[in-house]
Amino acid sequence: MNSQFHSTEVAGLFAPAQQLAYMLEFEGALAKVQGDLGLIPAAASRAIVAACSDRKLIARIDLSPAALAGNAAIPFVQQLTALIASVDTHAAAWVHHGSTSQDVIDTAITLAMRDTLSRISPDLRQLRETVAALALAHARTPMIARTLLQQATPTTFGYKLAASLAGLDQLATRLAQISRSGLFLQLGGPVGTLATAGALAPELVAGVAVRLGLRAAPICWHTNRVSIVECGSALAALTGQLAKIARDVILGMQTEVGELAESAAPGKGGSTAMPHKHNPVDAVVAAAAATVTPQLAAALLASMVQEHERAAGAWHAEWVVLPQLCSLTHGALLAVTNTFRGLRIDTERMQANLTCALRTACATALAETLGPTVGRDVAHDLVHSWSQTALNGNRTLREVAVQELATANVNLGREQLDEVFSIDRDIAAAEARTLDYLTQRKEGASFDG
Amino acid sequence: MNSQFHSTEVAGLFAPAQQLAYMLEFEGALAKVQGDLGLIPAAASRAIVAACSDRKLIARIDLSPAALAGNAAIPFVQQLTALIASVDTHAAAWVHHGSTSQDVIDTAITLAMRDTLSRISPDLRQLRETVAALALAHARTPMIARTLLQQATPTTFGYKLAASLAGLDQLATRLAQISRSGLFLQLGGPVGTLATAGALAPELVAGVAVRLGLRAAPICWHTNRVSIVECGSALAALTGQLAKIARDVILGMQTEVGELAESAAPGKGGSTAMPHKHNPVDAVVAAAAATVTPQLAAALLASMVQEHERAAGAWHAEWVVLPQLCSLTHGALLAVTNTFRGLRIDTERMQANLTCALRTACATALAETLGPTVGRDVAHDLVHSWSQTALNGNRTLREVAVQELATANVNLGREQLDEVFSIDRDIAAAEARTLDYLTQRKEGASFDG
Amino acid sequence: MNSQFHSTEVAGLFAPAQQLAYMLEFEGALAKVQGDLGLIPAAASRAIVAACSDRKLIARIDLSPAALAGNAAIPFVQQLTALIASVDTHAAAWVHHGSTSQDVIDTAITLAMRDTLSRISPDLRQLRETVAALALAHARTPMIARTLLQQATPTTFGYKLAASLAGLDQLATRLAQISRSGLFLQLGGPVGTLATAGALAPELVAGVAVRLGLRAAPICWHTNRVSIVECGSALAALTGQLAKIARDVILGMQTEVGELAESAAPGKGGSTAMPHKHNPVDAVVAAAAATVTPQLAAALLASMVQEHERAAGAWHAEWVVLPQLCSLTHGALLAVTNTFRGLRIDTERMQANLTCALRTACATALAETLGPTVGRDVAHDLVHSWSQTALNGNRTLREVAVQELATANVNLGREQLDEVFSIDRDIAAAEARTLDYLTQRKEGASFDG
Amino acid sequence: MNSQFHSTEVAGLFAPAQQLAYMLEFEGALAKVQGDLGLIPAAASRAIVAACSDRKLIARIDLSPAALAGNAAIPFVQQLTALIASVDTHAAAWVHHGSTSQDVIDTAITLAMRDTLSRISPDLRQLRETVAALALAHARTPMIARTLLQQATPTTFGYKLAASLAGLDQLATRLAQISRSGLFLQLGGPVGTLATAGALAPELVAGVAVRLGLRAAPICWHTNRVSIVECGSALAALTGQLAKIARDVILGMQTEVGELAESAAPGKGGSTAMPHKHNPVDAVVAAAAATVTPQLAAALLASMVQEHERAAGAWHAEWVVLPQLCSLTHGALLAVTNTFRGLRIDTERMQANLTCALRTACATALAETLGPTVGRDVAHDLVHSWSQTALNGNRTLREVAVQELATANVNLGREQLDEVFSIDRDIAAAEARTLDYLTQRKEGASFDG
Repeated sequence: MNSQFHSTEVAGLFAPAQQLAYMLEFEGALAKVQGDLGLIPAAASRAIVAACSDRKLIARIDLSPAALAGNAAIPFVQQLTALIASVDTHAAAWVHHGSTSQDVIDTAITLAMRDTLSRISPDLRQLRETVAALALAHARTPMIARTLLQQATPTTFGYKLAASLAGLDQLATRLAQISRSGLFLQLGGPVGTLATAGALAPELVAGVAVRLGLRAAPICWHTNRVSIVECGSALAALTGQLAKIARDVILGMQTEVGELAESAAPGKGGSTAMPHKHNPVDAVVAAAAATVTPQLAAALLASMVQEHERAAGAWHAEWVVLPQLCSLTHGALLAVTNTFRGLRIDTERMQANLTCALRTACATALAETLGPTVGRDVAHDLVHSWSQTALNGNRTLREVAVQELATANVNLGREQLDEVFSIDRDIAAAEARTLDYLTQRKEGASFDG
Repeated sequence: MNSQFHSTEVAGLFAPAQQLAYMLEFEGALAKVQGDLGLIPAAASRAIVAACSDRKLIARIDLSPAALAGNAAIPFVQQLTALIASVDTHAAAWVHHGSTSQDVIDTAITLAMRDTLSRISPDLRQLRETVAALALAHARTPMIARTLLQQATPTTFGYKLAASLAGLDQLATRLAQISRSGLFLQLGGPVGTLATAGALAPELVAGVAVRLGLRAAPICWHTNRVSIVECGSALAALTGQLAKIARDVILGMQTEVGELAESAAPGKGGSTAMPHKHNPVDAVVAAAAATVTPQLAAALLASMVQEHERAAGAWHAEWVVLPQLCSLTHGALLAVTNTFRGLRIDTERMQANLTCALRTACATALAETLGPTVGRDVAHDLVHSWSQTALNGNRTLREVAVQELATANVNLGREQLDEVFSIDRDIAAAEARTLDYLTQRKEGASFDG
Repeated sequence: MNSQFHSTEVAGLFAPAQQLAYMLEFEGALAKVQGDLGLIPAAASRAIVAACSDRKLIARIDLSPAALAGNAAIPFVQQLTALIASVDTHAAAWVHHGSTSQDVIDTAITLAMRDTLSRISPDLRQLRETVAALALAHARTPMIARTLLQQATPTTFGYKLAASLAGLDQLATRLAQISRSGLFLQLGGPVGTLATAGALAPELVAGVAVRLGLRAAPICWHTNRVSIVECGSALAALTGQLAKIARDVILGMQTEVGELAESAAPGKGGSTAMPHKHNPVDAVVAAAAATVTPQLAAALLASMVQEHERAAGAWHAEWVVLPQLCSLTHGALLAVTNTFRGLRIDTERMQANLTCALRTACATALAETLGPTVGRDVAHDLVHSWSQTALNGNRTLREVAVQELATANVNLGREQLDEVFSIDRDIAAAEARTLDYLTQRKEGASFDG
Repeated sequence: MNSQFHSTEVAGLFAPAQQLAYMLEFEGALAKVQGDLGLIPAAASRAIVAACSDRKLIARIDLSPAALAGNAAIPFVQQLTALIASVDTHAAAWVHHGSTSQDVIDTAITLAMRDTLSRISPDLRQLRETVAALALAHARTPMIARTLLQQATPTTFGYKLAASLAGLDQLATRLAQISRSGLFLQLGGPVGTLATAGALAPELVAGVAVRLGLRAAPICWHTNRVSIVECGSALAALTGQLAKIARDVILGMQTEVGELAESAAPGKGGSTAMPHKHNPVDAVVAAAAATVTPQLAAALLASMVQEHERAAGAWHAEWVVLPQLCSLTHGALLAVTNTFRGLRIDTERMQANLTCALRTACATALAETLGPTVGRDVAHDLVHSWSQTALNGNRTLREVAVQELATANVNLGREQLDEVFSIDRDIAAAEARTLDYLTQRKEGASFDG
């Protein structure tokens, strides 16, 4: 029922086959460095490294006893040991030497997170560049801005895009930071002290970390889950920002608004009952994901309270939560990418909605102009009242204002009135802000400087 | 990585094959009743009913276009129509007549929830009877109660079980209530009004509901998700109560407490690194589930805010959340059932911990006894101070008290002292409360009277 | 910053003064029944009862030492004892006899929940009757229904209201059930067994429960929080359903939709910057509350995992969560009540939006009519294509259809076409469903039968 | 009921008086820079700046009309304007010029977040130094490590502290990063484009930001809430890590474990019923807070989906959530600080628990030693079986092993056995890891390098 929300690719990173691949990678790297450091016999090291680099092993290991054992590492290590023992009894004794279940599992999950981020990164970059290009192209395309879902004052479609893009840019920076320095090898042995490695422990950790493309943690993080929640929170935030954009598209696609539409493809966005409908589809996926991902981030935060040197439940909960958080986030990213692929932007409708809005939207400017003469509050109240008169009488605010100002002997002058009832200033400002932002982000001087 | 937390059986209810079976059941029942009421031609009705009762169709329908279409009902109805059209063009025109995607999907999900509850019900009953039998058997087994994880005053193991059992009983009552009257057919057509059925709409809804074993809703609930969240909240509460029990087992299994242990089986609860360990396994599953299920319940509550006559995202989020909530809850139930299967109860260790506790645990009784004579607060402070003296000097509180009382010329009398330093009253009370509860629940006069 | 979201009245139930009143009520009832049963001396009982009924005591008790002591009951009992001791030393020794902090606190919170429900109940009834009356008045007021925020097929405003009302009715039933049978006295003594009361424990519990207007629990519920979460989940669901309604109002107030508006009052819904705006205010309060209440319900569910006989943290978390959940829910109820007070319903705009929609909305009926002749899928595709032609050419779908059908030699007949392009059936169905529901709910045969 | 969980100091930052102070600061800075840039008349600028720096104004502004108006900025700006108008009509017209409610409110909240972080930072630094000093002092204090709440292999108390400290260090780095570069002035005017400032907008934003000690955002963030959720997520993570530490203290305080105790103070950690008890109090506050803060972080993430240029509800929800998240986090920090203030560390009890554990804890080492000779799996099974024999017969594992090895003609040699049954290696490793970490963190080369 729900496969449409998950990224197949990222879900695969947490599926048994790929997790086994990561586990083998871990055990191989461990044995290699242990061999190099003389912590295990060189021959055993070579045999284990050879076995762990044999991808055919993946199909020969059965993780189903995990439920009975308590975790997947137990049957994995047992079967890996047996497979190696069938060739080299001596080497088998050194498999997983000095390590513990949580080392294997946490590292495998971290590698999956690393590969999730390495998939999100280019896809997010591409989406950001798509949005940036659109923002540039529409930097001067007028539309009405909406606050509290009410028409407010004029803006441009480019500005709207740029403002949302900024959130994506911030999160791209944050995720890059996490990719670069927030993914740690887990290697602590039974209780975190890596006792079997003695004084060589730091070198062992450093060596394995390098081989796996992870950072060496300064101390074992078995029950310190800060890195996990930082990554999880950033992913949930990304889904949230994607859903903000998707939500605006859904609102812009409303029949009564009609400014935007997802691309129409045969079989897309139809209805079993209503042939005339063109529903949002991809934007809905992102909106749905963002209803779930805050909860998954909360589950990770709740899981931080891990007892002593290994938790009874809180650690395990991560296995339920992290794969979903990763695949829903990448799924939402792909969905918003699809939303922009062929997004139909109806600039005429934007103009029509704006014109309709202008009957009252210049009210802000009018009130500001009157303020210094009649007082800020009086101006506000006057314009509010004139706006009602205009609306009720189907007249323009300018007509009402000119008449009332004449009656009151307040003289604004045609030029001032032209300025008030012009949207040039608004459009120019929206364009300037858009171009400013697009320039700054190119120069890398964004939110996270 | 996480399959050990989910009930395979319940997860299967939400898998494509079974969801297709439910969808076919819905379309068959709809066509049958529409035929009976003359809303569609009798021949078409017969042909559709026949097709929908053909279980082989399940394998012939491919739901993968759901992602493009927006939901699974669209490709389902299209392909079902095509399959029927290949035999009977006329009948095909009447497939899904007057209905809409959400009718099919909501009903299929409700049938899966019904079947989830019908699996949980007997398993929960069996667990409750197991716990009740154990509570009876141990109604007089002394142990020390613990508040804020500190040893408090004596209780019995039977009482401890009965108090937790009460929560399971309450939730069994609630879930039975939901099974009986909280599962509704969804049938409203495109916008809920079931317009094609005209005046026959109520009869149509009633007829289809009866055939599917669901209740007929008094009005379409496309964007009223109260029934969904009530079921979801009850499931999450069940997992919570199961985890409360599991948590107490985990705490009772601590090496330093040693009163309880999950059954030992070959391959169960071991460690890749520490051969001497006997870890909790099943209790951990329930504890992990209960870290996630509150979040899933929250996602359902957040999804209630569904726009107009069909939501753009909030409805879809349920498809991600409900299957997990159901399979994690049944998984937690099976896990706690396993915890009790062969649970090792070390009554000697309970007695030993109690004896150890008694050095100070009679302090409560002593303070209460002294209260009327020296004042409640003074008594409290005296006994607190004597407890410290006893602890520091490795003496019994009785020894210290007798000596101090003599010094202070307060005379309690041997009988009163015997009473104070006896746990008979505590054990008798624990037993009585246990038996009371077990009797009341048998008579059905439980929390939900 | 946030006081506008909370019900002042309900927040007051959890404020120190009212909590002290409840605590005194508890201690008074306890002493009264203990005296009656001979568990404490009659004179002491009378003195304690007299003191606890003295409302002036509330101002004399200072709960600020709660933070140091660990909970509010500790300083409360100490000071109450001291106050009584200053008058009657003997009686003071019997204050709080055999009870424990959690008894006082849980009972005080339960009384606050009871009083929360007793405030919600009439307010919710009034809102439901307002909505029901409006649904009746507008049972035939045509408007366009919207699915996935796209215009779908015609409905009536009355039907829209009735469908949302159903959720409020369900939750009113659930909350009434909880008020009637889900609020329990807490009275178990230090570890739940109420040992000091011996065989009289059940009578003691029953007696105190009657005096406080609560139910007697069949067994102490110190660490069984099912009743708490059931109440909390129902409150969160109510806020969710209120927000569903509020959300629809906000969407209906969009400038481009313009079908609804909250009443305008001086100073309401303005903007510091835009004098012409008329923002939703009350509906926004409900929408904001519903972003938070699912999380509070989740916190209660997470708090179920309470250790042994008293939890270290999970119980305490309820004190942070429950008051907010209660006051936000009542706040949301008051806000939606305000939204309906003077809600402006623009039936002309509804008609205008519907007319605009009708260019394509009859597509559903047309496709259904053509289905039996040309095949369901072909009909669907034809109508989809004609709808596009009509939209692009600014023609009606009927015009396009008549022309295309003639070309294709398909003859539908004027009557059939009239039927297809009439909304009479839709409006009649919406009206019938509305009246059906309003009748059924009056007869009490609602969702929860 | 719940004031004990909140930091009074931080709660005060969100209380009306301080929020008004921030709002005045904002309006003053705005007018100052607008005056400097010639955007408003110099005299008006001076008058506004003078008024906004008058702290007596705080008491004269009444925010209670916020509920009717929709937000606190509306009555604030109205009353401020009126107060200035009473002195200088001309200047009043330029108050809040070109700005909007959300500018004032978001900036006031950001200033409160800034001041929250500036209170957390030194308190967290002090706690970290306390824990680091304790870790150093106990780097060699032996204790038994516990995984899944079972005794595992030896560690030191210093290592345990260092491993938890690492999480606090990571979060201190993250919060410092946010303080330094994640707190942005909000200044966009009605729809974000700051139209009234024209080409001077960037200078205006930069100038006001500098005056308020915030960063200038590259584009308005009215509906881009990334900065808010990043700060909120980091705060929730901090509470989580604090609760991890608190939880370990609560578990270590269990009567049966007895290794740790919070300081005893008169009136602290008592029980209304049980005079002999010494309950955890401060650690419980952190544990309770961490049950709620993940939910508050989730509410912020859920609030990211903000419509168009100003949200209807999602923005407002932040006002309910952020103040709590800030005050609960600082409250948890103060509580854990109190836990460590006078924490009683019973090293004798640690040694006793370890000795008790050693009967089996050397099993790991034994199995590893036997592995190369008899095979890894066989060794694991043998040692598991011997451990059982030892436990059941109340013998040491060494005795059993020596006897069984002799029978099996496996010869380990006394030296090897000495090594196996020594904990020197474990203690040395724990000490080395501890000192390593303490050195690295001093050099600033921690997790976030």
